[in-house]
Amino acid sequence: MRVATLDNGPRDGTLVVVSADLGRAMTVPGIARTLQAALDDWARCEPLLEEACRRLDADPHMAGSIAFDQASAHSPLPRAYQWCEASVYITHLERCRRSTGRDLPQQLYTEIGMYQGGSDSFVPPHSPMYCFDEQWDADLEAGICVIVDDVPMGTTAAQAGKHIKLVVLVNDFSLRRVQFPEMAKGLGVLLSKPANAYSPVAVSPGSLGAAWTGSMLNRPVTVTVRGEVIGDPIGDVDALFEFPALIAHLATTRDICAGSIIGAGTVANRDPARGSACLLEKRAIEILEGGAAVTPFLRFGDEIRIEAFDANGASIFGAIRQTLEPPVTGRQDMGEQR
Amino acid sequence: MRVATLDNGPRDGTLVVVSADLGRAMTVPGIARTLQAALDDWARCEPLLEEACRRLDADPHMAGSIAFDQASAHSPLPRAYQWCEASVYITHLERCRRSTGRDLPQQLYTEIGMYQGGSDSFVPPHSPMYCFDEQWDADLEAGICVIVDDVPMGTTAAQAGKHIKLVVLVNDFSLRRVQFPEMAKGLGVLLSKPANAYSPVAVSPGSLGAAWTGSMLNRPVTVTVRGEVIGDPIGDVDALFEFPALIAHLATTRDICAGSIIGAGTVANRDPARGSACLLEKRAIEILEGGAAVTPFLRFGDEIRIEAFDANGASIFGAIRQTLEPPVTGRQDMGEQR
Repeated sequence: MRVATLDNGPRDGTLVVVSADLGRAMTVPGIARTLQAALDDWARCEPLLEEACRRLDADPHMAGSIAFDQASAHSPLPRAYQWCEASVYITHLERCRRSTGRDLPQQLYTEIGMYQGGSDSFVPPHSPMYCFDEQWDADLEAGICVIVDDVPMGTTAAQAGKHIKLVVLVNDFSLRRVQFPEMAKGLGVLLSKPANAYSPVAVSPGSLGAAWTGSMLNRPVTVTVRGEVIGDPIGDVDALFEFPALIAHLATTRDICAGSIIGAGTVANRDPARGSACLLEKRAIEILEGGAAVTPFLRFGDEIRIEAFDANGASIFGAIRQTLEPPVTGRQDMGEQR
Repeated sequence: MRVATLDNGPRDGTLVVVSADLGRAMTVPGIARTLQAALDDWARCEPLLEEACRRLDADPHMAGSIAFDQASAHSPLPRAYQWCEASVYITHLERCRRSTGRDLPQQLYTEIGMYQGGSDSFVPPHSPMYCFDEQWDADLEAGICVIVDDVPMGTTAAQAGKHIKLVVLVNDFSLRRVQFPEMAKGLGVLLSKPANAYSPVAVSPGSLGAAWTGSMLNRPVTVTVRGEVIGDPIGDVDALFEFPALIAHLATTRDICAGSIIGAGTVANRDPARGSACLLEKRAIEILEGGAAVTPFLRFGDEIRIEAFDANGASIFGAIRQTLEPPVTGRQDMGEQR
């Protein structure tokens, strides 16, 4: 099953099912009007959405279907009740730490590191990343995430896999010059993590087929910045932890509400040929290899693209395509009038 | 205006307006079915909710009204898209740090410290605090929060006050033995902050009258643990920052979605006669004064109560009343069947 959310007015958009080639879509008001509503009642909605997808794939031009334009999609959940991100690709942390002469705390090799991120207002996958000041050193972070149904407190990793209902990609937008002073306060990240964008299409594990190991995406995530591919690390390579363990970690002390999004962090492989999925790590490698960072952080107008392809070269989730832009002039006044 | 949410089945409950004496309530399906729906469309809903409240206060037994039982209420937002908490009462931080021989970083006297908390599933104000293990050192934290409408990125403190739409109390439930190792990872708090509970009633600044300074509650928050009042610190005393500054801080790099809850942290006054609003601080004072902590953290069955009273002794928000309990046996299996 593939679902997406049309960015057509309501805050939570309108849920559609999407064809296997990502070319066609169909609203499903008889099942659920929004993805959160479907996730809130997943046991009922899941088989109905699966059936609607099968019908669309069998007859992509069936009555009521429309062309699916990724540029008209919002993030599958335009806002969510929870976004938590781990950092399971230890290579990413090692490179970024070593480039500034710091060792990685040993506990991060054996314990999951996860933070609570903001989820109240994501941006569409083809929306700009808005940032007031280029000097904040804006960066993308390409990652793989799952969306779960209700997960009871105390769920174990062995039990958690069945709660994975949908898989998406994320651009975990980061402001590096804000991030490091913020982390020094010991309270985690907040201002340094503006609104994320997610891939236009969310795909069920069943429809990922051979691209899903049961606990992780096993395809490369291709990351392009300013027209150049800076990395295509593979999801299930060099991951210290996989999604069932991440879900169980978050459920240690609390229930997890349906529609929560859990990410595995910036994808990174030890193989240097796989490059990097963020500029901070690319610059860290430059420092480690050549003594100085060469690649600049994002500047206004710079474009990024994040996409994963299956073994046949077809786009699995559609593309996250964003440019860095200052907030629209008068935006605040417009906001006041909303 | 006073609103509450009945915990009567749907995930987001049912919105009611509440009378000034907190004794009567009335559903308002013609205005909005849930508080989030009202906040999503606040410009339309606010005057209608104000008018419904006025009618209920004028005739508390009007047709369609019901007795308001705090025990039947959920948190005003049973789940929210955002919960961020600052720590503006520096006395609280000073006491807790000094008791373990650590200084407080100077920047916390001049910069706002705020973290992103979990908001996907709050518990009702009279629900247990669920915790698997007493040895996790469960603690309450009594605080004052505001709920905002949409706040555009870049909103200043001078502009932010008008976005404060409702005021509530919180029990920011904390697991101290989980918290300190977790914070040492540098990613903030996650597992150490299980589901919060909020006061049964949310009150608009206008209806707080003299209890609201325009930017902070100026009444004591009375905190009772195991039947003993451990503190009644006053909201606007010794607060380094107030709500407009906190809202502006969060809006520095992103839009804030309507329905976001922003807290000021554990209330604390320099005057020792005002006691403490959490056990960690009470124990810190015991260590500083007598060399050892005497008061235990919460144990199963222990009851806490958090409430604020106006100048006439009337409860402003109703009471948060919780006991510490292990999760119900078989709870996970029940969850699986939901």
